[in-house]
Amino acid sequence: MINYPNGKKVVKTSNQKNSNKVIKSKSLSNANRGMDLEHDINLSNEYYINAKLAFIYKRPTPINIVKVDYSKGARITDAYFEKQSTTDYNGVYKGRYIDFEAKATQSRTSFPLSNITKHQIIHLENVLSAGGIAFFIVEFVSHGEIFLMDAKFIIDKYYHSERKSIVYDDFVKYGHLINRSYKPRIDFLPVVDELYFK
Amino acid sequence: MINYPNGKKVVKTSNQKNSNKVIKSKSLSNANRGMDLEHDINLSNEYYINAKLAFIYKRPTPINIVKVDYSKGARITDAYFEKQSTTDYNGVYKGRYIDFEAKATQSRTSFPLSNITKHQIIHLENVLSAGGIAFFIVEFVSHGEIFLMDAKFIIDKYYHSERKSIVYDDFVKYGHLINRSYKPRIDFLPVVDELYFK
Repeated sequence: MINYPNGKKVVKTSNQKNSNKVIKSKSLSNANRGMDLEHDINLSNEYYINAKLAFIYKRPTPINIVKVDYSKGARITDAYFEKQSTTDYNGVYKGRYIDFEAKATQSRTSFPLSNITKHQIIHLENVLSAGGIAFFIVEFVSHGEIFLMDAKFIIDKYYHSERKSIVYDDFVKYGHLINRSYKPRIDFLPVVDELYFK
Repeated sequence: MINYPNGKKVVKTSNQKNSNKVIKSKSLSNANRGMDLEHDINLSNEYYINAKLAFIYKRPTPINIVKVDYSKGARITDAYFEKQSTTDYNGVYKGRYIDFEAKATQSRTSFPLSNITKHQIIHLENVLSAGGIAFFIVEFVSHGEIFLMDAKFIIDKYYHSERKSIVYDDFVKYGHLINRSYKPRIDFLPVVDELYFK
């Protein structure tokens, strides 16, 4: 754990699992909730892998390496985060390609579209055009609810919605609640079954 | 370009495209040839993405972040490379999940199985068990030939071969030559079509 003078703490972490995880000691931020959701999805994916149900992985954060110190056995001493050109999660389930992005929002009333980048939208459109399964996992933290929403719906809103967000009620109406459990923490696979395999 | 006292040069690069690319000014090493193959496959994947044929990406190298300097806008100042728990490439093509690893060898006579990690083998077995398409792209540099070999064949050799390598002749007999062209540089998709979609 690294303590910074501004009160932020940083846990040693890997870009394979959680992104660089900043723990704010007091208030809960969107970023923090996003990290919690990410962490829980990673654990769920691990559960699915161990159970041989599905093989879905978080894509490591792309990093641009500037300097490597070979005297210390290939230690990276200067690098910076790059923008992801795809989504965070992909893998295979029952022969189909699965691709999704996970987002959390503190808002009670809507999900801000600013959470999504153009690159992600284009990538999901590409996946859909190629016959893959694509969706979002969206957590409404204040409601304690996690929804699976097919990417088509969100892409359509991204391009055509006059609002800069998708209202919570749309998730209730057109999305699908995902159950939390002890293991897996976010049991999204049954919802995927319901939506795409029946 | 960063010049090191030992004669190695390092180009600024990203773990999204080529891994940290070391250019040795004189001799060609296996690592270098691997980087060339990787580079050419990345370019080919870009071609396929732009042509909307297939959406296959190189997984960024997993990196364990130790220290981030927030005073310089989230600059990573200490990190190290982690082992990949999956393979380098995956994506979607004609509704199927595609997963592969790319390797190059200088040997004229065989492909060393030490090039492959247990993690990669297990991952490819998982992919196959879940109905995904899995293969290796293997370049025999000295022959100037690139083969696509289904993962089943290589997995079987990994577990059951008395030799610690797969002979070149097996690639000629059971593998499939991939054509090089101007664009895409390594045109593996037609071979995938032939093997898995007919």
